[in-house]
Amino acid sequence: MFIKIPLHISGLWYPIITNNPLTTGSIGAGINIALYLTAKLRNTEKCGILLNNEEVLKDHSRAICGKLGVNLSVDEKSPISLGYGFGLSAACLLGLSLSSLLVKNITIEKATWPAHVAEVIYNTGYGDVIAEFYGGLEIRVKPGPPGIGVVEHIYPGRKVDLIVSVLPGREDTPSMLKRIGKETYDLARKLIDELLEKPSVEEFFVKAHVFTSKIFSYDNIDKLLSPYRSKIIGYFRKKQALVLWVENEWLDEIYSYLNKYFLSFKTWIDMYGVRFENTS
Amino acid sequence: MFIKIPLHISGLWYPIITNNPLTTGSIGAGINIALYLTAKLRNTEKCGILLNNEEVLKDHSRAICGKLGVNLSVDEKSPISLGYGFGLSAACLLGLSLSSLLVKNITIEKATWPAHVAEVIYNTGYGDVIAEFYGGLEIRVKPGPPGIGVVEHIYPGRKVDLIVSVLPGREDTPSMLKRIGKETYDLARKLIDELLEKPSVEEFFVKAHVFTSKIFSYDNIDKLLSPYRSKIIGYFRKKQALVLWVENEWLDEIYSYLNKYFLSFKTWIDMYGVRFENTS
Repeated sequence: MFIKIPLHISGLWYPIITNNPLTTGSIGAGINIALYLTAKLRNTEKCGILLNNEEVLKDHSRAICGKLGVNLSVDEKSPISLGYGFGLSAACLLGLSLSSLLVKNITIEKATWPAHVAEVIYNTGYGDVIAEFYGGLEIRVKPGPPGIGVVEHIYPGRKVDLIVSVLPGREDTPSMLKRIGKETYDLARKLIDELLEKPSVEEFFVKAHVFTSKIFSYDNIDKLLSPYRSKIIGYFRKKQALVLWVENEWLDEIYSYLNKYFLSFKTWIDMYGVRFENTS
Repeated sequence: MFIKIPLHISGLWYPIITNNPLTTGSIGAGINIALYLTAKLRNTEKCGILLNNEEVLKDHSRAICGKLGVNLSVDEKSPISLGYGFGLSAACLLGLSLSSLLVKNITIEKATWPAHVAEVIYNTGYGDVIAEFYGGLEIRVKPGPPGIGVVEHIYPGRKVDLIVSVLPGREDTPSMLKRIGKETYDLARKLIDELLEKPSVEEFFVKAHVFTSKIFSYDNIDKLLSPYRSKIIGYFRKKQALVLWVENEWLDEIYSYLNKYFLSFKTWIDMYGVRFENTS
């Protein structure tokens, strides 16, 4: 049995901080893509996460094992590494946290709580756990993990052809969050309210671009995309994650072009979130 | 494009009635099975539901079309008919209500609200809409439709081989609900709390049997099942819906036996709830 968790790129967000990590989180919107982290239980005697054969998120893992009262170590694989804006830390932690279902009787939702709490405590993410759990193109309307927070979903209506690229450079989440001021979050709040009023893929891409352009530079990206600008329906970046929604006929060509510069993937919207799959 | 909605059999429930149908609903637990109602948009000029070529739930439909401010008629197919305890009315109404996504910009969750409201107003179901939307073996911890109510899920851990049968006889939901007294609902409340403490498939079947035996007779069923009793891990009925969890090696034999008496199906737990599928 392995657990499959979609990667998530947030396009709009503002944090809600309370004195309880379970009611702390983010309001926002983002897209789950059909690129997955997979997690497999390795060992029930030590605690840890091996991501692509490297031990990661040690403090987070210890916090999760402590909360669950079990020692679990998981073997995880992901096509994209930690720290680029694809919600990898949440996916890694969900892989560990949900593996507890193999040894403990709790609901699937409650098994995600330690992952959310660890993300909040270590400041690595506020909405990725609930977003990835439910999948889809989601609007987070109430902060917290599954069972406490609330997400609604945008119905895509048609096939949404995506290309995601990993841009060069790196910035960790705590320092990125520090750069965002009150004004920018006020803008996010307004855009999220508008998106809830008129939820569509088009509106999501427009608003995610408007918001993220206050935080990240688009100069080089705009230059690079200019030959294909009219074939790209929408695009935005979060940290090093670039998401493009392109015309189907141009998917292969734009993908080849981008893949010359950056690690890139052709993908689409994951509609189902976390699932448990049998290896047999 | 068509919409696929799992059928749902509630095993534990008690109603929460408020002065708002959106916060009215049931606390409880039930199982979504891999038998589906499918819905396809037929017409955007008249309002109605054609279930297996017969017009059904006319008042409900008018209420939903009114709430949505659109006229929609849908063509629906289901292997089981209305009124037997498989949450068919909710599935029918979800099919109509979710079809509005083809013509309206609202979130997927909000598109389910008119279906839940119609169920509550006409007293045909209190928890089936949210249960079917999220799928799985669910515990409803807060009443209401998706986005308002809250469900948690039991992790099955292994393949759960089910046989469902449609028992003879018929009782509509409003008159069934009338037969349930305060004592029985107090029992439900206790059993649901215990299930949340120790959520497992085994516990769900035991508790669903205990609760439903206060409402429905098991005499004939027990007699009929006696030759296979040791091969049946758990079973319960809701109205005319009988659900059996059986040992895998005995699945075919017990199915053949039951199918001689009642319309029966071999099935399993649906883990994904409502989905939108392309016909192409």
